[in-house]
Amino acid sequence: MPVVRVTLIEGYPAETRRLLGERLTAAVRGTMAAPLEGITVAIEEVRPDNYMRGGTSRVPGAPSPDPQALVRGFLEAMEARDLDRASEYLAEGFVMTFPGGVSFSRPEELAAWAKGRYRFVRKTYEGFDTALGVEGATVFCFGTLSGEWPDGTAFSGVRFIDRFEVEAGKLTRQMVWNDLAETLHG
Amino acid sequence: MPVVRVTLIEGYPAETRRLLGERLTAAVRGTMAAPLEGITVAIEEVRPDNYMRGGTSRVPGAPSPDPQALVRGFLEAMEARDLDRASEYLAEGFVMTFPGGVSFSRPEELAAWAKGRYRFVRKTYEGFDTALGVEGATVFCFGTLSGEWPDGTAFSGVRFIDRFEVEAGKLTRQMVWNDLAETLHG
Amino acid sequence: MPVVRVTLIEGYPAETRRLLGERLTAAVRGTMAAPLEGITVAIEEVRPDNYMRGGTSRVPGAPSPDPQALVRGFLEAMEARDLDRASEYLAEGFVMTFPGGVSFSRPEELAAWAKGRYRFVRKTYEGFDTALGVEGATVFCFGTLSGEWPDGTAFSGVRFIDRFEVEAGKLTRQMVWNDLAETLHG
Amino acid sequence: MPVVRVTLIEGYPAETRRLLGERLTAAVRGTMAAPLEGITVAIEEVRPDNYMRGGTSRVPGAPSPDPQALVRGFLEAMEARDLDRASEYLAEGFVMTFPGGVSFSRPEELAAWAKGRYRFVRKTYEGFDTALGVEGATVFCFGTLSGEWPDGTAFSGVRFIDRFEVEAGKLTRQMVWNDLAETLHG
Amino acid sequence: MPVVRVTLIEGYPAETRRLLGERLTAAVRGTMAAPLEGITVAIEEVRPDNYMRGGTSRVPGAPSPDPQALVRGFLEAMEARDLDRASEYLAEGFVMTFPGGVSFSRPEELAAWAKGRYRFVRKTYEGFDTALGVEGATVFCFGTLSGEWPDGTAFSGVRFIDRFEVEAGKLTRQMVWNDLAETLHG
Amino acid sequence: MPVVRVTLIEGYPAETRRLLGERLTAAVRGTMAAPLEGITVAIEEVRPDNYMRGGTSRVPGAPSPDPQALVRGFLEAMEARDLDRASEYLAEGFVMTFPGGVSFSRPEELAAWAKGRYRFVRKTYEGFDTALGVEGATVFCFGTLSGEWPDGTAFSGVRFIDRFEVEAGKLTRQMVWNDLAETLHG
Repeated sequence: MPVVRVTLIEGYPAETRRLLGERLTAAVRGTMAAPLEGITVAIEEVRPDNYMRGGTSRVPGAPSPDPQALVRGFLEAMEARDLDRASEYLAEGFVMTFPGGVSFSRPEELAAWAKGRYRFVRKTYEGFDTALGVEGATVFCFGTLSGEWPDGTAFSGVRFIDRFEVEAGKLTRQMVWNDLAETLHG
Repeated sequence: MPVVRVTLIEGYPAETRRLLGERLTAAVRGTMAAPLEGITVAIEEVRPDNYMRGGTSRVPGAPSPDPQALVRGFLEAMEARDLDRASEYLAEGFVMTFPGGVSFSRPEELAAWAKGRYRFVRKTYEGFDTALGVEGATVFCFGTLSGEWPDGTAFSGVRFIDRFEVEAGKLTRQMVWNDLAETLHG
Repeated sequence: MPVVRVTLIEGYPAETRRLLGERLTAAVRGTMAAPLEGITVAIEEVRPDNYMRGGTSRVPGAPSPDPQALVRGFLEAMEARDLDRASEYLAEGFVMTFPGGVSFSRPEELAAWAKGRYRFVRKTYEGFDTALGVEGATVFCFGTLSGEWPDGTAFSGVRFIDRFEVEAGKLTRQMVWNDLAETLHG
Repeated sequence: MPVVRVTLIEGYPAETRRLLGERLTAAVRGTMAAPLEGITVAIEEVRPDNYMRGGTSRVPGAPSPDPQALVRGFLEAMEARDLDRASEYLAEGFVMTFPGGVSFSRPEELAAWAKGRYRFVRKTYEGFDTALGVEGATVFCFGTLSGEWPDGTAFSGVRFIDRFEVEAGKLTRQMVWNDLAETLHG
Repeated sequence: MPVVRVTLIEGYPAETRRLLGERLTAAVRGTMAAPLEGITVAIEEVRPDNYMRGGTSRVPGAPSPDPQALVRGFLEAMEARDLDRASEYLAEGFVMTFPGGVSFSRPEELAAWAKGRYRFVRKTYEGFDTALGVEGATVFCFGTLSGEWPDGTAFSGVRFIDRFEVEAGKLTRQMVWNDLAETLHG
Repeated sequence: MPVVRVTLIEGYPAETRRLLGERLTAAVRGTMAAPLEGITVAIEEVRPDNYMRGGTSRVPGAPSPDPQALVRGFLEAMEARDLDRASEYLAEGFVMTFPGGVSFSRPEELAAWAKGRYRFVRKTYEGFDTALGVEGATVFCFGTLSGEWPDGTAFSGVRFIDRFEVEAGKLTRQMVWNDLAETLHG
């Protein structure tokens, strides 16, 4: 039954406001046993010249780049082997860890290492999840891998999950688990 | 700079209200590029007799069982091999999927299958993540496994991640990835 | 001195919002001894895409057909002897009760019974009152009747009052009192 | 789906706040086709020292004497033939009108006139309705009369309705309709 | 950290709303040790037909003539020796008091008296201050005087301050202090 | 007719809230021609654990030392010739300016200079005014001086006004005007 009202400076795109409404609803829903239909969210927009902080009018801030969209962008660049574009998504100090605990800090290192493991790999996504935190977000994607082993044999349906930490619009960490070893030896 | 106000019936425990405040803050934070210090959340409690829906006074609903707490409870019961208690956390239709795509619907099935794989296994958690959705929540935990192989050899530091779907206070799905195969054959 | 604020989805006609403002004012006025000038009502409209219930955007509901307008419509149809149109205003189970406790459930029955009582009758309204309840509304109209007795003699100025119960846009009950017997025999 | 919030000075009795909540709900319900369960009313009480009008703190006004309670009080005094107490409910200029259009301005006049009509009369109430207006309220009560004719014969089940206008805590007008003539001559 | 929200009828000019926002910010700032950046003011405008007081729609009131603007207008008229225009700024009962405690109630009296003191005088303003009160405002201006003594000698840089009481759009009192005597004899 | 609502963390003293209410009223009053009785201010207090900024609960800030109280404190210390205590009210860079444009930065300098001008002086206050600004406040006091000239002759009723600039709880500037020269030579 809770009612959530947000005072916002006018000017955010509809998609940003829709996402905000959904996420505020989810925040209530995950915390108290209110029936979904009983959660009301109203966004009250005020014109920039009707909003002051510290005695000064404000314009709306930029919509935050959606954490999930960042992760999708990075994954697409990696799959297209556009390593320069992929690198733009990464924060200083980014680390990616793969099965067996192998770690890299740059897409180029991963590409070099992968060469000995498979000719190519493609991801089919079953789902994405985004965990929002006060300091940043964590994004997960899972599904199956398909591709070719170094000897040209095809594989598919290999389970995987990726976990990404996102802060201030950049990826700071990627963790990867999959069933490649299981498939190879299982 | 957004201001979020929530009208709530008086009576929710402090911890529930603290979680709610944090999650509403995270919902804003993940959607617009507002500086963290600029996000204000105020919970306005009204006495039950000052709150009416449909012309009838209401009492506060139960705090929702925290999705992460449910997952921790289930994992503890499983580690303690208390399969009855573990089963209480599971919804009708629950499915758990393990590396290689092996699936079970009851803890007993998992226990039987695991016997041939390791003597015992213990989880050390590096972190938990909760992704709140309008319909339910997804909880992730990751870290390392340690235990003994069937022949008594010890293993440790084996990477794992679990993904749980939670709906209406019950677990509906568990997905598991780990490096056991990698460790065994890698 | 009370301040009433209503959060409403944008799109209700001005007349609906005017009626709402007046009725909220009357609700306060009838309950606490606030001076009329001290009761403030502000309707805060939010755009449909800024309003969510259960995580889903909503459009404004239809303005409710005004209970008094329904009653007037029924009375006009009856006076015009348009019994089909009159019947459309009536809910399943409608009952009308007349002086002496005579009851009918269909306009046709009333018309047949009235034939022996007067050639025709016309209502002059002094006033209408609407009592709003949580479950439905009660509408009253009162004034005087004029017409002709079966023998052609005219009568006028005969006091009457009707009481109508209205629920979900239909009339469920009509009760009639008047001075016809008083006039005839008084 | 509308949300109604009322800012009120702390201190009104629970019954007054309950009535207010119900009437605000009814005001919305009677004006727009919102499902009853979708109408939320929250009364936000502020301490007297947190409320200022014109720069001056205020104490809560008196709860308004409920119009229906006033009418019941008057009717009880009349039935008990306590004409002095009954008179205290009446505003300057009060007029009561009875079947046949007979009018009185004081309870004593009614009592004198009634003597020739019946030995005594008692009301059994089927219901009360209150129509709230910005300027005042109208209260209706209806049911059946029982009593004795001047010759000692008993009567009962005689339909009646009373309409009262209430303003500023006093009754300003009473209008009465009943089936006594119908019963006598019908 | 306080959040101030004002419900206002739509239609006030931007400058009036800007001033209002600034003054509300200053009111908070002068009363509690909140960091300036932590004070949020949001003006929530409602359309005139969404605002009712006493059950009647309202149009926005006139913006109040700014007290400081009134004082500036009066001072300009005085400096231009347009005594008629200057008089229009003055309330019934206006009194002006000068160094030595000399008092006048009309600009003409001041002009006559000043003739023996200097040929002319001009004000250079260093600043204006406005103290807002519930009943009215007090406006101060200070800076330096320049002009000519009766003998034609020039003077300049003579410190002065004026204090004006403003009520209901008119000046009710002026008090003047300056260093003319100090300059003459110092 | 404007309604001002302030969301405040619970815990500010009643006097601070009273001052806040009065000053918000004055801010509205000085900006728009609303009748004083039509300005409503409601302070909505939320418990510290119901208030979060940046995802962290907050306690109420200190009430700001009232600018006028600071000025009174300084003036009392000066009159009591307690120069140490007086100095505590002063900000780094404080400057005081007296008739004739004489300036000092420390109370001791003023005391030394004053010795040649009067044996002692005492202030009788007619009034205090406080002009609140976004960056700081300006406080004025005016009234009359009495005391003794160096030769022991008494004086009294000498008009004066002081203007103080206050920022962050300290006095940054004092400006003094009075009729002492006028009195001496007038």
